Amino acid sequence: MQGNMMDVQLTVPTILERIRTQYAGREVVSLLVAGRDEQGNPVPHKHRTTYGQVADRARRLAGGLLGLGLTKGDRVATLAVNSFRHLEAYLGVPSAGLVLHTVNIRLHPEQIAWILNHAEDRVLLIENVFAAMIPAIKAACPHLEHILVLGPTPQPIPLPGVRDYDTFVQESEALTRYPDLDERDAAAMCYTSGTTGNPKGVVYTHRSTVLHSLASAPKDGLNVGEADTVLPIVPMFHVNAWGLPYTCAMYGAKQVYAGVFADGRSVATLLQDEAVTITAGVPTIWMGLLAELDRAAQAGQPYVLGGLERLIVGGSAAPEAMIRAFQTRHGLSLLQAWGMTETHPLGTASGVPYGVDASSDEAFTLRAKQGRTVPLIELDLLDDQGQRLPHDGKTMGRLIIRGPWVASSYFKGEGQSNFFDLDGQGWFDTGDIATLDERGYMHIQDRAKDLIKSGGEWISSVDLENAIMAHPAVNLCAVIAMDDPKWDERPLAVVTPKPGQSVTHDELISFIAPRFAKWWLPDATVLTDSIPIGATGKILKRELRDQYRSYSSTQGLVTPAAPDRSE
Amino acid sequence: MQGNMMDVQLTVPTILERIRTQYAGREVVSLLVAGRDEQGNPVPHKHRTTYGQVADRARRLAGGLLGLGLTKGDRVATLAVNSFRHLEAYLGVPSAGLVLHTVNIRLHPEQIAWILNHAEDRVLLIENVFAAMIPAIKAACPHLEHILVLGPTPQPIPLPGVRDYDTFVQESEALTRYPDLDERDAAAMCYTSGTTGNPKGVVYTHRSTVLHSLASAPKDGLNVGEADTVLPIVPMFHVNAWGLPYTCAMYGAKQVYAGVFADGRSVATLLQDEAVTITAGVPTIWMGLLAELDRAAQAGQPYVLGGLERLIVGGSAAPEAMIRAFQTRHGLSLLQAWGMTETHPLGTASGVPYGVDASSDEAFTLRAKQGRTVPLIELDLLDDQGQRLPHDGKTMGRLIIRGPWVASSYFKGEGQSNFFDLDGQGWFDTGDIATLDERGYMHIQDRAKDLIKSGGEWISSVDLENAIMAHPAVNLCAVIAMDDPKWDERPLAVVTPKPGQSVTHDELISFIAPRFAKWWLPDATVLTDSIPIGATGKILKRELRDQYRSYSSTQGLVTPAAPDRSE
Repeated sequence: MQGNMMDVQLTVPTILERIRTQYAGREVVSLLVAGRDEQGNPVPHKHRTTYGQVADRARRLAGGLLGLGLTKGDRVATLAVNSFRHLEAYLGVPSAGLVLHTVNIRLHPEQIAWILNHAEDRVLLIENVFAAMIPAIKAACPHLEHILVLGPTPQPIPLPGVRDYDTFVQESEALTRYPDLDERDAAAMCYTSGTTGNPKGVVYTHRSTVLHSLASAPKDGLNVGEADTVLPIVPMFHVNAWGLPYTCAMYGAKQVYAGVFADGRSVATLLQDEAVTITAGVPTIWMGLLAELDRAAQAGQPYVLGGLERLIVGGSAAPEAMIRAFQTRHGLSLLQAWGMTETHPLGTASGVPYGVDASSDEAFTLRAKQGRTVPLIELDLLDDQGQRLPHDGKTMGRLIIRGPWVASSYFKGEGQSNFFDLDGQGWFDTGDIATLDERGYMHIQDRAKDLIKSGGEWISSVDLENAIMAHPAVNLCAVIAMDDPKWDERPLAVVTPKPGQSVTHDELISFIAPRFAKWWLPDATVLTDSIPIGATGKILKRELRDQYRSYSSTQGLVTPAAPDRSE
Repeated sequence: MQGNMMDVQLTVPTILERIRTQYAGREVVSLLVAGRDEQGNPVPHKHRTTYGQVADRARRLAGGLLGLGLTKGDRVATLAVNSFRHLEAYLGVPSAGLVLHTVNIRLHPEQIAWILNHAEDRVLLIENVFAAMIPAIKAACPHLEHILVLGPTPQPIPLPGVRDYDTFVQESEALTRYPDLDERDAAAMCYTSGTTGNPKGVVYTHRSTVLHSLASAPKDGLNVGEADTVLPIVPMFHVNAWGLPYTCAMYGAKQVYAGVFADGRSVATLLQDEAVTITAGVPTIWMGLLAELDRAAQAGQPYVLGGLERLIVGGSAAPEAMIRAFQTRHGLSLLQAWGMTETHPLGTASGVPYGVDASSDEAFTLRAKQGRTVPLIELDLLDDQGQRLPHDGKTMGRLIIRGPWVASSYFKGEGQSNFFDLDGQGWFDTGDIATLDERGYMHIQDRAKDLIKSGGEWISSVDLENAIMAHPAVNLCAVIAMDDPKWDERPLAVVTPKPGQSVTHDELISFIAPRFAKWWLPDATVLTDSIPIGATGKILKRELRDQYRSYSSTQGLVTPAAPDRSE
């Protein structure tokens, strides 16, 4: 028996219509680049507009793109920072039935061209600060028919097909009747970071975009409402800025965009001046903010951030020490969230469960995990034979995920081995090793490929890294496997100390020893000036492994005894 | 171009699995009937259980029902009050692929039998307090194969097919693998109150149930999270208790059920003792609560309700005076919400928009409207020719609604004239007359059939009623049309004064005159002891109109002059 509810499709135009009809007066604030100072650093200019104007321009953009002859499903790429113009593309492109393809601006130009060609983008929206790349991109991507430049340029770019975005929008007719859309039509796409092999395209649907916004908005997730002011530091070129531009628009929250200004001082100032209530970014951003807040407090001029309710942290794990530092030194609450490009991204959030005292050690331990699923997301653990493992908080297994905003394949059918059936249901293999506990808390132990297999047992590099990074002299740490004749692999800590500080292997080991079985402890520590970071801010462990695979504990700073497996 | 997201269906079992795997320790509290006192009044007994136990029993109920031979789409009726057992049915019945059919216990037994027969229910879950009805129901509904009695009875009921629900659940095998469900399969059904013609069945889908929960949970809607304790006074037999049992389960909020104890004192005590944060009910309930809170405060023993963040009011319009009374006398915030059986029910909620001072008159005026749509719901206004009307806050029109949890038809295809196409999209005609303003605030003026048409212009009976009910001597008021030889219809106020108080027509008219055009003011007032109320708590205006249609202002308490249309 079928029900008799309307078959109304879940589509992005419904979000666009909400800001137009209910939240037209709510603000969108963007830090744009006004010019350069004498050192060549960008100088900010604060731009203010409203949802009403954004909606009008988004509908003009939609109308203009269709006027160029684009048809349903055509891809429109962006190479852009966070700003109101990017938001217009977020809303306008899918509302025209086209596909918003956000490209990571931190990639190498050759990778950018590869991705633009692979996605077969017909239009590119490019930020004025990257305008110098246009000739090279045009040369490498002959199928790109139109390039719209976001923001003013010192002089016009005299190349065919290149025009000013603002002029294009102003001169276009607004689309007032949206095309018929099926909720399973493509709305947006984003490529994975591709630390192994070529990047792969994930194609989000209108349905997944709307459901992700609905499910992530409530209290125990992002907690977004009309009275909020949200600063997504997480870039809009990466997994839809965790869906925040859509979620905020759906619920009428004011949005603030930092553009290229993501340093601690710029972020702290913006949080204070715009009375931000919710912000979101990767741990690196919060490290910078923490340093700035500490500095200002020590200088007796602390920032006033009384209304800041929630700093959402994701992209990689936030160490417990960082969560504690924000809470105890500044009264600010970090909420850890977890997801992937393939999961839109929100999979879990790690609030304190009912019944646990928020100031207890247990609360901080839980908050340093990846957390519990948002509604409609399922997680499970598999062993190497594909059997389900217990959710006991201890057993490590391969983390698999399913849900209505989880990818079922990559663009053009690539990477099929990541998708599989289990008991008649489709799942995605995250490539992570994790535990799940009785309350549903998920804790990532490692990327499967980064896990250290020592004497047939698994050692989590992530746990060791978090523990080592809590040491006051440590800036950054990566724990990787080095080859070992007896145990196959043994952990090696690669550490960058804080400026002007030093630390020894023995000091680090005694610092972390109380928290681990003896055989987990790294056999050696390498001190280095720099650890390689990829385009999405993650440590490139592959490079470190190539460099240190044959490192032996005998050549380290110290030569500890063979690992004791008695515990 | 289609996206490549998983085709995971939105179904009720995902809600059941959440309380089982993430919120198993969260409580469900129910006031049950322990017996009767000397006056025959029910004596409460407080029952406590957990989501873990509810989930286990819901899965046993599901397994047991399938064991009786029921198959997908079969209807399981409930005649039950709010309690954990009803919650088990909410979760267990749809998870078995069956359809939960909640029946209004306040209907006349003949209407109940008519509805059970119309829905072709195969199983009935009936509360022990209604057990006396079982023989009559069995006689009237020969197709009812099984009756499960919720809660203990003084002695077993020796009728074939009748058994104890708790025993049935205990003895059944839990369903651990849910049937394959399409999200458009029926999950639940509820009949309209049928103030005109026979009741009509609205069949909710799994999809509409899940979407309704997702969209209603955020901040500006119900604002439900794991830390909340929610008391739905609104009955579970009526439009799924506004979806709260599902929404609370999805987000892990503790639930409190008042059973048959909905009087002001019981409610106030329960709010205080269980530290309720969110509660929901019709205006009548809050009138009773307000009186009790006033009494206790005057007696110097006020209730302690510090954690009570939100009283949601719906079902019929809450007068501004009531919203102000709660806010100013008790610091409690009423949130008006609007919906219908056909809309699952949540369509709008009326919070204070960003930028309006919460203590201003404008804020209270807005809060007394029905409010703005929740995501995915669209509203519009039509004139008598089916043309769209402006959203200017003044123009009254027929309110139409569409969205993924709005009915597209009634069960068995009845009442088709309420559903129609406009510009290729399906809409439902609410039968209400409303205004919509530039910010999206909807304000119901009247039921179309209750609207007073005077000299070709419309007069809103609801506006007049709300204004009159703000008078301190008035308990209840209905404004209806009386026939008028010159103007076709003129408004008549039917008023019940508060106990021991009286009021004259002139007093009422001078009290409300500043707020209305002169020709809107009622020509006469009838004072009466009682105003007829229907099974869902709404005034039966049809009965009043039958009684007073030919009433003439000349026979009233006063005889005012003919209406002055100069304004």
